[in-house]
Amino acid sequence: MKDFEVTARCGKARLGRLTTPHGVVDTPVFMPVGTQASIKGVPHDMLNCPVILSNAYYLYLKPGLEILKNFGGLHRFMNWNNSILTDSGGFQIFSLSALFKIRENGVEFRSKFDGSKHFLTPEEAVSFQFEIGSDIIMSLDRCMKYPSPRADIASAVNTTCAWAEKGLSAAKRYETGQKLFAITQGGTFPDLRRECTEKLMEHPFDGFAVGGLGVGEPLLLRQERLAENLDMLPADKPRYVMGMGPAPEIWDTVEMGADMFDCVLPTRNGRNAQAFTFSGKINLRNAKFKNDKLPIDSSCGCPACLKYSRGYIHHLFNVREMLAQTLTSLHNISFMIDLTQLIRDSIKNGTFPEEKKKFMNNWKGEN
Amino acid sequence: MKDFEVTARCGKARLGRLTTPHGVVDTPVFMPVGTQASIKGVPHDMLNCPVILSNAYYLYLKPGLEILKNFGGLHRFMNWNNSILTDSGGFQIFSLSALFKIRENGVEFRSKFDGSKHFLTPEEAVSFQFEIGSDIIMSLDRCMKYPSPRADIASAVNTTCAWAEKGLSAAKRYETGQKLFAITQGGTFPDLRRECTEKLMEHPFDGFAVGGLGVGEPLLLRQERLAENLDMLPADKPRYVMGMGPAPEIWDTVEMGADMFDCVLPTRNGRNAQAFTFSGKINLRNAKFKNDKLPIDSSCGCPACLKYSRGYIHHLFNVREMLAQTLTSLHNISFMIDLTQLIRDSIKNGTFPEEKKKFMNNWKGEN
Repeated sequence: MKDFEVTARCGKARLGRLTTPHGVVDTPVFMPVGTQASIKGVPHDMLNCPVILSNAYYLYLKPGLEILKNFGGLHRFMNWNNSILTDSGGFQIFSLSALFKIRENGVEFRSKFDGSKHFLTPEEAVSFQFEIGSDIIMSLDRCMKYPSPRADIASAVNTTCAWAEKGLSAAKRYETGQKLFAITQGGTFPDLRRECTEKLMEHPFDGFAVGGLGVGEPLLLRQERLAENLDMLPADKPRYVMGMGPAPEIWDTVEMGADMFDCVLPTRNGRNAQAFTFSGKINLRNAKFKNDKLPIDSSCGCPACLKYSRGYIHHLFNVREMLAQTLTSLHNISFMIDLTQLIRDSIKNGTFPEEKKKFMNNWKGEN
Repeated sequence: MKDFEVTARCGKARLGRLTTPHGVVDTPVFMPVGTQASIKGVPHDMLNCPVILSNAYYLYLKPGLEILKNFGGLHRFMNWNNSILTDSGGFQIFSLSALFKIRENGVEFRSKFDGSKHFLTPEEAVSFQFEIGSDIIMSLDRCMKYPSPRADIASAVNTTCAWAEKGLSAAKRYETGQKLFAITQGGTFPDLRRECTEKLMEHPFDGFAVGGLGVGEPLLLRQERLAENLDMLPADKPRYVMGMGPAPEIWDTVEMGADMFDCVLPTRNGRNAQAFTFSGKINLRNAKFKNDKLPIDSSCGCPACLKYSRGYIHHLFNVREMLAQTLTSLHNISFMIDLTQLIRDSIKNGTFPEEKKKFMNNWKGEN
């Protein structure tokens, strides 16, 4: 059996199975974000999901390689037995750019915690992720803000491709079953994205991620580039759209052939009282919920919905109790997991377009 | 069967059973504090304890009587099926005194939330707790700071006794099984405490609480007054020492014949990385724990200790993840529950003095 198989299709939408050292991941899949080895506000032992995301840049600084190795890897350190995907830190080079200097053979940066100086090669970025036992490892890439001059994007594409190759040379995945993914860049320039993607596809990566989007460009432009880029990718490898989270965009992007997603929205929104339901988003701080005995979403089976009402959670936000953030974040992650289950079922049943339409009609945004 | 029975004794220490509308509470018991219908940082569905504490003053303001009644009472509102004790708000009159004015027939106060003006009689304070379905209801009392002039304490004793009688007249406990407790005051004046206690004992309260201590007086003075006051109380009624939390003081006070305790320390300390163990307190922020694979307390069976290491929780505090506070608070509450189980067993087995000595020897404070 191959480590990734597409088992059904509905249009371009794909149902797949990705096998990692920690189990099988049915795709399309949503991966909750646990940047620093914890999903913000949510005890991860309350979650039932096949893969979570963590961040090599943060883990490299704290707790660091030595401690993670001493604990027998990231899984044991945080007591998570399903799969873990680690982002390499390429996006942090972008988002915390004041702390970074790009050199030809790697990145010089200062710790966001204590200002200490570090130098990381693309080989080390990949080795670190192998060493801590990540199941799905991302190459170190170079992400640029939108808009950026074409010359800068072209240069970032060259760096990204060179670093991906160097990371590949450091990979030991054939022995361990760990996967190494490359990340495409190229901003919103179609030809640069193609150049980057084709170069990366010359190498035996286990999967490909579309990166460098969702950095400020207009939604329609993003969707065009996403669709084109996903079309270029090999049919027999998993496709990961990085940092994409709003439910409607997940439907759109699955329709273009994407398999994997991650986003901080479920927990970030959850901490701000915004809850996802299949009838749209609701803000639990709204006074209209104060007497509401229904759960956040009556169709949801998560612990928050099985045990607590909107009225109670409204009260918890009102009096600033931490439990408010925990319950709403937990629910929002469960919603994303249910949403991708619905998507997978609709691909299997050949009803993806109808289910998408139904979802979009019900999802009215804030209500 | 009576609603409270003492089933064993070891010296003055008592093993008891208190029956409420929501079950049986084995005493001595520690009650975790959920002031605003939530135990800070801890999903209460993770707790296994017979009774928690909430606060009528806070609940009266938010969410208020109407909403709590609409939900069918506090238990259903917060989805807690074991017993609830509600404090009346007397301590808040003391601790938030700038917002209060004492009148002969009640208290005038402003909401700490929105400054709105309220007037509460001692009858209403008790009725409110009955209406929201509290299992153990506290009379409205008048608590004074330490030190206060004798005349002020004497006046507070008079008010406390008058209010307790008025609350009793408003009680409907014989129909519902709900319990009404009176609270003794008198500061550190032995004769005033005796006067207050004897007056209150003329009336058929279901239990008695020792109040007005732990407000700044020296520990030895507190212990003397506590011992005297507990000795005055009837043998066939439960005795509750309000707001008492440090583990050594719980041993001391059980030895004086106390049955019930509550304290915010397990959650407050938990939020500040201080964890309780049977070998003393530890501060999980301490760098010496960064490579520690042991649970907080190896003898503990709480979810935090079953699943996570000191090293991981140290990391969570280090990177300011909420899960750090949740796990440590959850553990500290579990520790208090285990501690009172140990105390109950030692009373039953007649080994209280030996077990107390053993505990005290191991409990070295910070280590």
